[in-house]
Amino acid sequence: MAIEAARLSPSLAAAAFLARRPPPALFPFSLRRRLPLLRVLAGSSGGDGRVVALSSSELRKRRGLSSSSGAADPASGGDEKLRSLRRLFSRPDVGIDAYIVPSQDAHQSEFIAECFMRRAYLTGFTGSAGTAVVTKDKAALWTDGRYFLQAEKELTHEWTLMRSGNHGVPTTSEWLNDVLPSGCRVGIDPFLFSFDAAEELKDSISNKNHELVLVRGMNLVDEIWGDARPKPPKEPTRVHDIKYAGIDVPSKLSFIRSHLTENGCDAVVISMLDEVAWLLNMRGSDVPHSPVFYSYLIVEVSTATLFVDSNKVSEDVLEHLEKAGVKLKPYEAIVSEVERLAEKGAKLWLDSSSVNAAIVTAFKSSCDKQMKKKGKAGKKVEKEASSDEPTGVENGTVNAVYNVSPVTLAKSVKNETEIEGMKNSHLRDAAALAEFWCWLEEEVCKSVPLTEVQVAEKLLEFRKKQDGFIETSFDTISGYGANGAIIHYRPTPEDCSSVGSDNLFLLDSGAQYIDGTTDITRTVHFGEPSPRQKECFTRVLQGHIALDQAVFPERTPGFVLDVLARTSLWKIGLDYRHGTGHGVGAALNVHEGPQSISYRYGNLTALQKGMIVSNEPGYYEDNSFGIRIENLLLIKELNLANSFGGISYLGFERLTFVPIQNKLIDVSLLSPSEINWVNDYHEEVWDKVSPLLSGPTRDWLWKNTRPLLDVTH
Amino acid sequence: MAIEAARLSPSLAAAAFLARRPPPALFPFSLRRRLPLLRVLAGSSGGDGRVVALSSSELRKRRGLSSSSGAADPASGGDEKLRSLRRLFSRPDVGIDAYIVPSQDAHQSEFIAECFMRRAYLTGFTGSAGTAVVTKDKAALWTDGRYFLQAEKELTHEWTLMRSGNHGVPTTSEWLNDVLPSGCRVGIDPFLFSFDAAEELKDSISNKNHELVLVRGMNLVDEIWGDARPKPPKEPTRVHDIKYAGIDVPSKLSFIRSHLTENGCDAVVISMLDEVAWLLNMRGSDVPHSPVFYSYLIVEVSTATLFVDSNKVSEDVLEHLEKAGVKLKPYEAIVSEVERLAEKGAKLWLDSSSVNAAIVTAFKSSCDKQMKKKGKAGKKVEKEASSDEPTGVENGTVNAVYNVSPVTLAKSVKNETEIEGMKNSHLRDAAALAEFWCWLEEEVCKSVPLTEVQVAEKLLEFRKKQDGFIETSFDTISGYGANGAIIHYRPTPEDCSSVGSDNLFLLDSGAQYIDGTTDITRTVHFGEPSPRQKECFTRVLQGHIALDQAVFPERTPGFVLDVLARTSLWKIGLDYRHGTGHGVGAALNVHEGPQSISYRYGNLTALQKGMIVSNEPGYYEDNSFGIRIENLLLIKELNLANSFGGISYLGFERLTFVPIQNKLIDVSLLSPSEINWVNDYHEEVWDKVSPLLSGPTRDWLWKNTRPLLDVTH
Repeated sequence: MAIEAARLSPSLAAAAFLARRPPPALFPFSLRRRLPLLRVLAGSSGGDGRVVALSSSELRKRRGLSSSSGAADPASGGDEKLRSLRRLFSRPDVGIDAYIVPSQDAHQSEFIAECFMRRAYLTGFTGSAGTAVVTKDKAALWTDGRYFLQAEKELTHEWTLMRSGNHGVPTTSEWLNDVLPSGCRVGIDPFLFSFDAAEELKDSISNKNHELVLVRGMNLVDEIWGDARPKPPKEPTRVHDIKYAGIDVPSKLSFIRSHLTENGCDAVVISMLDEVAWLLNMRGSDVPHSPVFYSYLIVEVSTATLFVDSNKVSEDVLEHLEKAGVKLKPYEAIVSEVERLAEKGAKLWLDSSSVNAAIVTAFKSSCDKQMKKKGKAGKKVEKEASSDEPTGVENGTVNAVYNVSPVTLAKSVKNETEIEGMKNSHLRDAAALAEFWCWLEEEVCKSVPLTEVQVAEKLLEFRKKQDGFIETSFDTISGYGANGAIIHYRPTPEDCSSVGSDNLFLLDSGAQYIDGTTDITRTVHFGEPSPRQKECFTRVLQGHIALDQAVFPERTPGFVLDVLARTSLWKIGLDYRHGTGHGVGAALNVHEGPQSISYRYGNLTALQKGMIVSNEPGYYEDNSFGIRIENLLLIKELNLANSFGGISYLGFERLTFVPIQNKLIDVSLLSPSEINWVNDYHEEVWDKVSPLLSGPTRDWLWKNTRPLLDVTH
Repeated sequence: MAIEAARLSPSLAAAAFLARRPPPALFPFSLRRRLPLLRVLAGSSGGDGRVVALSSSELRKRRGLSSSSGAADPASGGDEKLRSLRRLFSRPDVGIDAYIVPSQDAHQSEFIAECFMRRAYLTGFTGSAGTAVVTKDKAALWTDGRYFLQAEKELTHEWTLMRSGNHGVPTTSEWLNDVLPSGCRVGIDPFLFSFDAAEELKDSISNKNHELVLVRGMNLVDEIWGDARPKPPKEPTRVHDIKYAGIDVPSKLSFIRSHLTENGCDAVVISMLDEVAWLLNMRGSDVPHSPVFYSYLIVEVSTATLFVDSNKVSEDVLEHLEKAGVKLKPYEAIVSEVERLAEKGAKLWLDSSSVNAAIVTAFKSSCDKQMKKKGKAGKKVEKEASSDEPTGVENGTVNAVYNVSPVTLAKSVKNETEIEGMKNSHLRDAAALAEFWCWLEEEVCKSVPLTEVQVAEKLLEFRKKQDGFIETSFDTISGYGANGAIIHYRPTPEDCSSVGSDNLFLLDSGAQYIDGTTDITRTVHFGEPSPRQKECFTRVLQGHIALDQAVFPERTPGFVLDVLARTSLWKIGLDYRHGTGHGVGAALNVHEGPQSISYRYGNLTALQKGMIVSNEPGYYEDNSFGIRIENLLLIKELNLANSFGGISYLGFERLTFVPIQNKLIDVSLLSPSEINWVNDYHEEVWDKVSPLLSGPTRDWLWKNTRPLLDVTH
């Protein structure tokens, strides 16, 4: 699954520098600290605790978010929502001139629960990425190139569409500085902005003497949404068995506590949902695609507290937590707990790039109060320059260390058990995909064509038959012909193509299993590919092979390798507008940091042994076809003949074993070693996956793993 | 010629980030804003205006800097120098507790005149890079790994050697903060620090409440050097003919003035010597290897003033300058002129990364005086965020724009005439090299072996015969066997090897011609190379080819391509500890910015059409042998079948045409396309260079440009 923006490392002066002057082609979208929300959520979970995979269209209907019932229809009250929102501006406990409604939840999650889809509710625009800004007489929505057409269709005339990345389009703060008279009050819900993001916003609107107002105690969109607003998810959590997690919770907590001690901290606030899930060996299903649950965690030197709706915690989960000395408090108690810590004089570790402004500012003001009470000067913020990834936050009176969460790197470097689970789940996933491709090849020849959506649903069926399958790890991208060129295409039953044999078919999909997470893309042709398609496919494959085969010294950041996946395309003047690789969680989020392989140079995180990354170069010919070839790779240490500099050299081990269609390869473009790579890979696919198959699928796999040709060409 | 540190782009938050935590292997030396001083200067110019190329050893003798007459000998008064220096500390007009003596001149030059080699004079250490710090009771010298052995030999016991880059070794400011009691006064000569460097120093020593004292009016080392100090160079300047420069001075001045107007500035101070030379189509010979002259230039909207010793300006040069409306003032008048501009209320463009602290602070304090006089608040510094490469300097009361010099980029993008000159001079240089290699191959077989120095001197003889030859563009690196593994090896007659046929011989050399500047490295074996040597050479060659053949979209910074030159070495666990490419001037400095191709990611400057870069991967096996293959490349726009994103795709055109020794290539490691590259290159070498040769040299070229073997292997 391709991503637009690399997850950026916290030290982002360089990225900020780039962000100030984005070349139109290479930086089509704004750089963001966390992964962007790539898709509107689709797939959800039933009330019975079992995960139910719903198609995007069904979900949309259930949400009343589809364009046919959206704000574009005056009867649905688009105008009324804006009127109601503006009425709230003048309430005495609000008192603002503008309000910003972002896409995020309080945890900077990629996938969010329905009740947090406030921007979609307010604007009628259902794309995954976008920010709405409403003033007393204007309303504007920012989104990126993926969604211009959709937003045009879904927004009413009262909304101005701001095409982010297009020349001359202002940022939200530039626009606010432009349209508001000097000295206005701009409101946000502080839970929906990381502290860093809020500070950046505050700075940029201060140019026009605007004040950033943190509207506490209520979200203004929720106020107008009222009873129609979906309830927060209440899905039960479960223990992630030690046979999949590998390391028990007490050991993980000890590790975090040793970091606390090293940094002279008393406690750390963990707010990223996958970090909480990883640290506590727990999983949930509050949001589709990610096995996480809404919660915060505070780890202190001798205690740990999970902030979660206790209804989600069954007896066995409770026992699991008690064994590790983790207490429960209500989800909403996070702010008061942070204030209590400030009163105690505790020194807090805060990852201000992920912890929201509500929590950080509550801590800060509580500290300030304490200082005043004690009548002495506050301690200075300590910036940990020695630490790996320090973030800088200027403040003179907070008893806090602002640094990247100690869980981030620990989670990304997989242990042996997690690696084993990833390998096993990938083999089962490969078996499901073999069944699927074998079925589809037959099906395409029949007289009644299948749609992109039907094909994706059938794939889900095959996966469901595999042991430990839970749900899809993201909305399946099933794109035939020109649809394949839309990098984040999501077919709907009302508006999708049939899959035929006249063009390329791109399928990017993944699954959550009990023991691992998968993400794979293959591009195939069921008829006769054109020479152009073969040339482009082969060049993408050459990039894929070059990255797959890369060897690199330890301490190499991922962006250094990105060029290897592009050179073959660049040679003929082609390129693709997304990163080449993202991190993947072990039975967790399909996108995780801190590492990435991207042409955006901001992420200085070194690739490390035990990390998992995707390898997914592509090429997209607008209105024509799309190509992407994606495997997941495990980073491993190599045992080479030399080790110059006395350091380790690293390389990749493939986790994904699904045939690449030989038919699409122009062998004359490949070097002998590239031909060897294809043949060796297919031999490995056969060896690993054929034992899981029988009958026609096994025959299909045999046919599709035959060598390209003799290497001595 | 290889470089350690990339010239960094001015936006260096990222570099600063890296500099805080240098991985020991990949960042052996400190990152510096400007190119490091790579070598002690050798080669000088005679008093008659003709350039005389002297060997390093001769020069050393003339300077009294060789180790035999250096500070290691107590009789030479090493102790006395320190005593004299410390005596000056307490003079009422000085009043300091420590004094820092860097290697630089007032213009951040790579090569400096003898009279500015204060650090070498004071310490006895003659290495090119190093900083001396003297307190009332301590003396320490910082240098990097290239010079540890040499410094140990040359320093007296009173000096502590600080091995920069080694674990736990403090920076100069950390050391000062450690050894001085709080609140001391640390002195520098403000002419020898760029304003940015001085500010950084001021900041870092303020942690211990030390004050940075700009000791004006005298350099303390010059005071003790006294009459023995060499006189400043007085070499005549010359006009760089329009047939080589391509663009006349009025046009260049217009270009600069349009930048001034765009940025709302009244004047710009140019202090880099190659920038002055380029802008005024003048050349000089004040320092060895670089055809520049000591000067400053101020361009105002309607006037321009060159600050230079008028004795260096002959009648025809004066006429040339008058035609362009450029007036002369004495070199020393720069400070008073800047003060005069401040008094006039002019807004100045200052590249604070290159303009020294003496000039910038003079301007600032003069502005402050003006402000006070007028009794009004000072205008704020304006930072040009919109400009390509802004630098940040915090200050509230200066009427200045701190930005990279408008000449830097203009100079690096060569015009058609400059490109023509570079091509022509490279062909003549190739002819000289063919004669040289032909001669050496014969010579090595004879009974009396030649030394590395004799070989280098013979090469100079061959070059001198070429039209338009002026001098070497840097000290020739002539390293046989283990000496080749010392990246900046410089043989001396007293201490050098013979060149034989049992090991590899690495020769990195270059020349200044009237129409261009060259820089080339070849590695050869006159006997039987070992399989290990062939494997390493072939991998270096593969890296060289990969970079040479790269195609990349416009706006790509050089560091993105660096990995292409390393992957073949990384595959077997090898690497090299220097950048892969540096910019080269057109009949100017052999190292110039702003572009580079380096594994240091700080330089975000995009490679642009018309720039010239070196391509010089290498491999160095300590105590055994060294390999480097270097060509210069011109960046050109390509006409490809596609241009994805509607942008230009760029590639390289080779300027260097000297055979690569086939004997050292293990053909079995090469792909068919790599074999083609070698054969095509050699065919091109023959076609271009053979017309300039005759007799045995022509035969030698024929033999050394034969194809490797049939491609269908």
